[in-house]
Parts: sequence; C-alpha cells; structure tokens
Amino acid sequence: MLIIGAGFAGLVAARRLAGKAVDVILVDRHNYHTFTPLLYQVATCALDPSEIAYPIRGIFKNAGNVFTLLAEVVDIRLEERRVALKTSALERWETFDYLVFAAGSRPWYFGREDFSRHVFNLRSLEDAVDLRNHILTQFEIAAMQADSVETRSCLTIVVVGGGPTGLETAGAVFELYNHVLRQEFPLYDLNARVVLVEAMDHLLDPYPAKLQQAAADQLRSLGVEVRLGARVDQVGDGVVALTDGARIEARTIIWSAGVQASSLAQFLDTPQRADGRVPVEVNLALKNYPNVFVVGDSVYLEDPQGCPYPMMIPPAMQQGDIAARNILAMLDGRPQMAFKYKDRGLMATIGRSRAVAWLYNSLPLQGPLAWLVWLVFHLLTLLGFRNRLNVVVNWAWNYLTYDRGVRIILSR
Amino acid sequence: MLIIGAGFAGLVAARRLAGKAVDVILVDRHNYHTFTPLLYQVATCALDPSEIAYPIRGIFKNAGNVFTLLAEVVDIRLEERRVALKTSALERWETFDYLVFAAGSRPWYFGREDFSRHVFNLRSLEDAVDLRNHILTQFEIAAMQADSVETRSCLTIVVVGGGPTGLETAGAVFELYNHVLRQEFPLYDLNARVVLVEAMDHLLDPYPAKLQQAAADQLRSLGVEVRLGARVDQVGDGVVALTDGARIEARTIIWSAGVQASSLAQFLDTPQRADGRVPVEVNLALKNYPNVFVVGDSVYLEDPQGCPYPMMIPPAMQQGDIAARNILAMLDGRPQMAFKYKDRGLMATIGRSRAVAWLYNSLPLQGPLAWLVWLVFHLLTLLGFRNRLNVVVNWAWNYLTYDRGVRIILSR
Repeated sequence: MLIIGAGFAGLVAARRLAGKAVDVILVDRHNYHTFTPLLYQVATCALDPSEIAYPIRGIFKNAGNVFTLLAEVVDIRLEERRVALKTSALERWETFDYLVFAAGSRPWYFGREDFSRHVFNLRSLEDAVDLRNHILTQFEIAAMQADSVETRSCLTIVVVGGGPTGLETAGAVFELYNHVLRQEFPLYDLNARVVLVEAMDHLLDPYPAKLQQAAADQLRSLGVEVRLGARVDQVGDGVVALTDGARIEARTIIWSAGVQASSLAQFLDTPQRADGRVPVEVNLALKNYPNVFVVGDSVYLEDPQGCPYPMMIPPAMQQGDIAARNILAMLDGRPQMAFKYKDRGLMATIGRSRAVAWLYNSLPLQGPLAWLVWLVFHLLTLLGFRNRLNVVVNWAWNYLTYDRGVRIILSR
Repeated sequence: MLIIGAGFAGLVAARRLAGKAVDVILVDRHNYHTFTPLLYQVATCALDPSEIAYPIRGIFKNAGNVFTLLAEVVDIRLEERRVALKTSALERWETFDYLVFAAGSRPWYFGREDFSRHVFNLRSLEDAVDLRNHILTQFEIAAMQADSVETRSCLTIVVVGGGPTGLETAGAVFELYNHVLRQEFPLYDLNARVVLVEAMDHLLDPYPAKLQQAAADQLRSLGVEVRLGARVDQVGDGVVALTDGARIEARTIIWSAGVQASSLAQFLDTPQRADGRVPVEVNLALKNYPNVFVVGDSVYLEDPQGCPYPMMIPPAMQQGDIAARNILAMLDGRPQMAFKYKDRGLMATIGRSRAVAWLYNSLPLQGPLAWLVWLVFHLLTLLGFRNRLNVVVNWAWNYLTYDRGVRIILSR
C-alpha cells in the first residue's frame, strides 16, 4: 500500500503498519518528518532546523516492510490505482492496493492569492529558515542606513492570525528583536515593533473567554501590539493596510491566518469544501473508494454534534492510526472502526514564562505553569533522543542567557 | 580602521583591538565566523551548521569600539584609503586610516577553471550544506532506480587532494556511506566507494614519512581507496579521468587540492604570486602602504629559512594578532614587531579512533590517542559555550550510536 505524506498523520499510519504482513511505500517530498509546532523557534533563532526534523528512513530502518521514497506526488489516478511520482532524476508511476492520503495543508489567503508574493509562511523547515534569514537581514540593512522611516520598516513585523501559531510567532519574534538583537545592533533608541492582527474580536478562537483574555493580556504585557477585529485589506512591498484603516510600514509580514487542504486533494474524485478539504465516511475512507483513506488536514469530517474536526495535529495523528487499523481490519476481514476524536485540550505559548493551556477542555492554566506544561509536552512529543537532548540544551541556554544561539544567515 | 574578513585572522585582529582607543569596522559577507576545520562534519551530517558558526555581532556586543557590517567588499582604493561595500540593499564607500586585509582564500584549479563547474568545495557553510544535500540526494536517487551502473556512480565519491581536509572528508564520507546510510537504504549488496586522489606520492606533505604512511594505512584499513601520484586530468558530469589512466564514474567530486588568495588581493597594488598571494614586509604591512596590513591566506611571507608560511589557521591567527599589535604600536609611536610563526604542530583525523598528529613538530602520534588529542583541541578552540555543548552532545551521540543525526536535505 501507499502512504502519501510523512507528516503527523502519515507517520502514525506507517508506524502502525510497520512490522505487519503488508508492504508499505511511504512517499514524502522531504527526507525528514518536521515537528511543525516548533517551526517558529527555528525562524526566531532558538533552534537548529535539524533539531525539529527527523530523517524518515531512520524511523523505519528496522521495519523491513516500510519502504521510503523521496519524491513529489504529481498525479493520482484512483480508478487506475496508481500515483505519479517525480524526483530530480526521474518520473514514474507507482501502483497501490490501499492508499492513505496524508498530504497535509497549505496557506489559504481566502481568494487573495496576490498576498502570497509579499508574506512569509511558517509551514515547512524551508519557510522557517527563509524567515530567519530575512529577519536577521532586516537588522543588518537597518544597521547600514541612517534613514529612520526605512529603518523603522525594517524593524516592524506584522503577524496575521490570532491562532496558536500567530501568538507563538509574535511573542518569539518580539523577544528576539527586543531582548537579543537589540543589544548587538547600534540602534539603541529604536524598539522593534511587533503587531498581531486578528479578524475576530478575540484571540485563540476555540478557547474559553477567560483564556482568550489572558493570552491577549500576556502578549500586551510583553510588548506586542494586538489589533483585534481587523483584517488585511492590501499587502504591498513593505506595507500592509488593514480594514480598520491602519497602514503599517513593515518589511516582514507573516501569514498564519488560514490553511486549506493540499492541492493534491483535487485528485480524490470527491467534491471539496471551500477550504479544499474532502468529506469522508466515518471510517475515514472515501465514499466511492473504500480502499482510499484520507487523514489529517485534508479531511473533512464532523463530530457527533455536527462540528467539523479542526485542522490540528492531535486529530491528524489519531486519524492516521484509525486509517491504518481499518486497512488491517479489511485485510483480516474484521469490522472497521469509526473515527472519534479524543480531545486532550489546547495550548499555546507566548514567550518566556507566558502561555495558556486548556487541558482536557476543562482545566484552564495560564502563565508560568502553562508554559512549563507546554515545554514538557513538546519535548516529550519530539521525535528522537538526540533531538530532545539538543533541544533541552538549547532551551536551557536560551532561558539562562537570554540568548538565541542560531543567529546565522545561511542563504538559500 | 577597517578589517576585511572575519575569518580566523580578521577575528583575532578585531579581538586584539576591541576595547582599545580606536574605532574598528569589521566587514564580512557572512554574519557569522565559520569554524572551517569542522566543515566536513557538517557536510557528512554529523553537526548542524550553526554549531560551527558563531554570530560576529555576539562576539563584540560588549566592545563599544568594534562595529560590524554585513557586506561584500567589491573594490579597494589604497591611495584614496577607501573600500566599496555592497549589500542586498545598497552600495557605499567606507574610508579607513588603517586597513587589515584578511579576505582569506578560494579554491585553485591550477588553471583548469572548467573543473569548478563539476566539483564541490568545502570552504564555507553554504558549501558544506550543498554537499550534504547532494550526498543524501544521491542515495535517494539510487534507491529509486534499478540501473546498477547509474546506481554505482551515485554511490561513488572522489576526493581530490591528500591534505588534512581531503583525508578528513574522505574518512567521514566513507563512514557516513558505509556505516550509517547503508542501513537505511535498500541497496544492501552495494558498498559505497570512496577514492582519495593525491598528485604526490604521499599524503600530508609537510608531515614526517612515518606519519604519512600511518595516515595512508589508516585510510585504507577503513576502506578508502587511496590513489597516490595521480592528478585529475578531466572532469565531466558524473565522471573523472585521472592522469594515471583511471576513469571513475562518480556523481560526487570534492576538490580540496588547491587554494589561492582571495580575488580581492588584486586591489592591493602589489605584484601577486602565482597563487594570488601578496608579499609583505616582516611587520605584515605592504611595502608601499605602511598603513595596510595583509594577514592570513592572502599573505606571502617566508620564514628565516626562506620557506613560505603555509596557508593554515595557526599562522593566520598569529598574523592577525601581530598586525593589530603593530597598528597599536604605530598609533603609540612604539616600534613594530616582525612576524615569527610559533608552530605548535599538525594534526588530521581520518575517522572513528583514526588520526595522526605531529605535536610541536617533534612528537608523532597516531591512532586513538591522536584522535583524542584532535577531539579535545578542536572542542576547545571552537567559539562559544553553546556551540561546544552542542558539539559534545552530537559527537557523543555519533560515537555511541554510530548515527549521524543531521541527515536532512534542506534545499538551498
């Protein structure tokens, strides 16, 4: 069988199938699995790229039945049960009996594709390194010139989207700018300005109101400018105009406002939702293709209350597991399981000792305790002992010294 | 005053001048200093780029008189005492009273510039990351195809040059290929082939014959093919022809056979040697410009026996120090010092527990003891406590597990 994508959903599926009496081909465009929740720490010079990336082949080197391919999927023919793979060296078709589609998601600009030319994303390791290089370069450019309007726009960053990624990025960028870089650049009279823009009148939409307020308070106490009820109207080179009339000169605009399903979801022969997601049966298979399972950010499925499951890592992992179990059940002639999300809660960190958490959707935490829970949880879920060790060393270093060691512009 | 280059020579000069009653501008094309002796470990997935790179601004953040600029030097006018700097955003002239020229070196193909299109270098962090990506990609390509001639050329690497860099690279690549990657790729019947080519009839030219032999023996016992007395005759896409008649199909050719002075040395108004180096007075200043000091790989100076100092890190560091001291002496009206190299010896590592060292040019070491001396010395000379800590963690990890953690293809 074939698994498209070694993100959280695809990886869990492959691990469930490893060692079983099936042949599995796992295809990904990268040779590593990315621990996306910490991408913002790579972008803000706190961690090295390889610390949040784990080589896929390393995970399955003892599983003789999982075969890894580094390739891009360029076409899928469900009727013919085959998939077109493309690498730098060749193109070829690969056939499958069962398919697990775990191709993930991509940014969504709600119809304003022109935004994509001017904004940074934080969805891949390449994105994170590009953003890191860009942020550091802006400071170097500012250090070379006297013009203060120009200089200010180099030191202004706008983060669009008040979800966990937006909060975490805004907080980390603010700390990098004002606690670390400021000491090293001869711009002592200038504070870097970080603006977080959110279309709704609150941050962290699914959280209880008390935590939403706590998150906004903690961000503001750090120094981040929080603008609620404002959307991006226009984005140009070095400037962003908001629907509330504000016009911000900024050379760095980070988009974390919307995601949509992978463009490969178009090949699934199923009408897509506005955000590209594909409806599936309760067992996660496509209605007309019982051998094709869709998991992770590309899937559209509602909970028993009629509310769609969110595009987040925990449901993606649980879906990967259920899809793999259901394939094994089909092969054994056993009944399949319906997907049901076990929600263990939400958390988001804002900066040093600042975070909010809503454990099991019943226990609200904020401040240092929530931050500690966040640290421990992310460390434990990171793949690979070497990565954990390195991350602990770097986090301890950053915490104790207020430093960010990975401040290198390594051009791509 | 102005220092061009934050390599070993320029950095030592700037550190000597930090805190003194002079204004120093330190210009480099990177925002970090690179610990070049460990570049081959980045290329072979053992270390992260940032672990051998240290942000220049971080070194001088407490020195109010050293001002760092990230820019490329594009022109030097010694008569007019100014230098043209170029960044992504602007170009400008910077004037100087004293100049320390520490622009380093670049590959030298001995008149065969066509080689440059087909070979990899290991002189910068970008080079190292490019080579890492390339090596890992060759394995992925080999895993996608059955053609065995093609596959073999993906798994063959030729290292040109039998100096320390060539040895270290050949050994590390062999270990990566045959101890790590081989377990993860379904090519179990194939050994990767690593060939080291050296024009002379011995490796490590300046070493005593006994250590030269020990180095060749250790390389061969590891599995590396050592071809002495052979030069590269032709290099094409995926093939290299040697002067001894051998023709090797290889998709990876690493050039560590020759270096020449930086191209900026042409602006020093002084006739250059064949390798671009510029003769200087014994105080390291140019004959006609007593305010211009040349240090590091771009300098040509003979020792009292008439033998030119080698293009290596220890003389470069000592030259940077003497040039800075001589500038301070001129400013104070004190007499200047002549450069005299304090040679503490040579060492080169070949792989796990394999190395040769010639301490103080009198004590020869080989095998595990030389390897341990090499490890400790390089760890201590690495800049920054965080970097040392991370490198220790990764070296211990690599040693204990036979793993190389940084196996990610992060395309540039």
